[in-house]
Amino acid sequence: MIYLTRKEHFNAAHKLFNPNWSEEQNEAVFGKCANKNWHGHNYDLFVTVKGEINPDTGFIINLKELSTLIRREVTDVLDHKNLNLDVPGMPVMPSTEHVAIFIWKILVEKISDMGATLHRIKLYETESNYVEYFGD
Amino acid sequence: MIYLTRKEHFNAAHKLFNPNWSEEQNEAVFGKCANKNWHGHNYDLFVTVKGEINPDTGFIINLKELSTLIRREVTDVLDHKNLNLDVPGMPVMPSTEHVAIFIWKILVEKISDMGATLHRIKLYETESNYVEYFGD
Amino acid sequence: MIYLTRKEHFNAAHKLFNPNWSEEQNEAVFGKCANKNWHGHNYDLFVTVKGEINPDTGFIINLKELSTLIRREVTDVLDHKNLNLDVPGMPVMPSTEHVAIFIWKILVEKISDMGATLHRIKLYETESNYVEYFGD
Amino acid sequence: MIYLTRKEHFNAAHKLFNPNWSEEQNEAVFGKCANKNWHGHNYDLFVTVKGEINPDTGFIINLKELSTLIRREVTDVLDHKNLNLDVPGMPVMPSTEHVAIFIWKILVEKISDMGATLHRIKLYETESNYVEYFGD
Amino acid sequence: MIYLTRKEHFNAAHKLFNPNWSEEQNEAVFGKCANKNWHGHNYDLFVTVKGEINPDTGFIINLKELSTLIRREVTDVLDHKNLNLDVPGMPVMPSTEHVAIFIWKILVEKISDMGATLHRIKLYETESNYVEYFGD
Amino acid sequence: MIYLTRKEHFNAAHKLFNPNWSEEQNEAVFGKCANKNWHGHNYDLFVTVKGEINPDTGFIINLKELSTLIRREVTDVLDHKNLNLDVPGMPVMPSTEHVAIFIWKILVEKISDMGATLHRIKLYETESNYVEYFGD
Repeated sequence: MIYLTRKEHFNAAHKLFNPNWSEEQNEAVFGKCANKNWHGHNYDLFVTVKGEINPDTGFIINLKELSTLIRREVTDVLDHKNLNLDVPGMPVMPSTEHVAIFIWKILVEKISDMGATLHRIKLYETESNYVEYFGD
Repeated sequence: MIYLTRKEHFNAAHKLFNPNWSEEQNEAVFGKCANKNWHGHNYDLFVTVKGEINPDTGFIINLKELSTLIRREVTDVLDHKNLNLDVPGMPVMPSTEHVAIFIWKILVEKISDMGATLHRIKLYETESNYVEYFGD
Repeated sequence: MIYLTRKEHFNAAHKLFNPNWSEEQNEAVFGKCANKNWHGHNYDLFVTVKGEINPDTGFIINLKELSTLIRREVTDVLDHKNLNLDVPGMPVMPSTEHVAIFIWKILVEKISDMGATLHRIKLYETESNYVEYFGD
Repeated sequence: MIYLTRKEHFNAAHKLFNPNWSEEQNEAVFGKCANKNWHGHNYDLFVTVKGEINPDTGFIINLKELSTLIRREVTDVLDHKNLNLDVPGMPVMPSTEHVAIFIWKILVEKISDMGATLHRIKLYETESNYVEYFGD
Repeated sequence: MIYLTRKEHFNAAHKLFNPNWSEEQNEAVFGKCANKNWHGHNYDLFVTVKGEINPDTGFIINLKELSTLIRREVTDVLDHKNLNLDVPGMPVMPSTEHVAIFIWKILVEKISDMGATLHRIKLYETESNYVEYFGD
Repeated sequence: MIYLTRKEHFNAAHKLFNPNWSEEQNEAVFGKCANKNWHGHNYDLFVTVKGEINPDTGFIINLKELSTLIRREVTDVLDHKNLNLDVPGMPVMPSTEHVAIFIWKILVEKISDMGATLHRIKLYETESNYVEYFGD
């Protein structure tokens, strides 16, 4: 068993705002992140897969095909978008936690179909905070 | 003469859209950056000042005071904001070039008042592209 | 279960010197790190917590409150200090290993009180070496 | 139990080419990585060991001795080399996966002899992809 | 006048070997870099252009077109290649200095045709050494 | 004319304290940097030289010899030292500005003797602030 990680990135706008709360309550909990006109981030995404090495290639998975998959299924969907408005299926509050799980759900079966196992989604919102999700 | 650089950062939403053009023309020139619902970035800002060393302190300028100035006058104004909607005085198209010049104009006299000279604004929009402005 | 990591930093002086050993023995084991007049580092601290997502916020833990906690309890205590002289409770030899465990002990219950679980302390002494502690 | 990681690096040439396949098949699977005249990388190597803290030193393992070991046994062997031609014992296809396992096998017993346990080899081929191996 | 920098990268093999010298002399001057079977690097390339801001776009130059130009004319030519064998027009000794000047010559007129001025080629061979060329 | 930069690093302790001032005045100006028991940093040093390319080598200067010079004359003198106590010739207040000029004076003639010209000393005290000195 060996692990391979691929880094991709996307830039997006979002805000954190609970529609069941007053503006004051949103401001108290989310602070500047609740700004009604949005803010945004450069997101760095690290996708880790695990598996056995294919003796014909020396690879767990073809890195170029993994990159193509992530770009087509994830970063093309999220890049230069508003995570609250432009992404069907995204939870109402696109916190880093929710975005990481959203990405996991997109990729887990598709990576399985390629013969490897999705191990981890690691998503940086800024260089000072990131979330990791292992599927359970 | 010696040069001192301080790094600060802010996260913001923006879009690039020329209101004198059709949507098609905006899409052709700005591509994904014209997305009507905005996108965003983690901006890294490097402010370089130059001057003589004060023999009492060993400093060109007090680094803590420089940081406080940049935060109060620049990053508190831009952080978690929409550069198109929330920032009085920002040009209609908040390209990295325009944001860098906007920051220069805020700081140039205030740094002069502190006894040093603003030399350069360097602004990263992503880790792959940045703008530098020297005031002329 | 999902994991969130927050990065903070502090700058400190220290030396590695076993008071039960001769100077020669300290020099042989610790090399330059035993310099009697101290040396220092820019420490990067990564605190990882785990937990369930709160459906009202989309968060495991409020990131701003986590950052405030780490700054008040850890980095304000260690920043611009001499780890051997200025920090009550620090082991005699402030190796990266010992500092990481020292930080774990400060945070583990306070993070529990916030409704999450401390998972890992990761502490960089330089960009070429770091320590990780998981509490057991 | 605590974990310590040391970073080292080496620069090397390689190509990915399965000698049992036609040129066309190699090109189809490995793309540019099959270029017959080689290409190369700056490899960043992170070696993680785990163990108990020695009460006399505050260390799991002497970091200087660990660095010396990795340089003598691994990076001196791989640095400024052609991984396909110059490294006895390297598998025919020096994929990042195979190089990581190759390094594990060199170090696992030698680190055990130093009183610690090798936990992980993490090898970056570029800043966008890396492999991790835990020995099983 | 304002400056814009775009980062691109390529991975390549090379060696430093003066064909007019003996092997001993090459080894004495170039050390490991003279290894006859090549070694390689991940090169990071920073292209800086300067110009006036176009009032219709807020840009010195269209960043996407600049990136496309660099990829088509430079990195597609150098990526996953052997700089000594695979690149027509490259000097016999592909030192970082020579590669930087080689890239300058490719780009200087093409950037002029786009309405801006090439200001600097900055080329990292490793994270510890880079070359800058300003055209004179 | 072409420019080459070499990165080296050192870790050191220091404090900022003007002996002609009271403790209160030092505290007011230097804040935490005046802590009497010292603090410290991981300093990153970038030395830039300029010159003509030697047609026999493709180099401005032999990078290995430049690295050896910087290590022997600068980083071996400063690494794991107390900049206030252990470094003959260092100004009383080892601000980043003063340390950069101190390094310039050590290197400027020695690099001239190697056939190149020292262009710039760039010294990072933390990743958020650095000083540049060009010799005049």
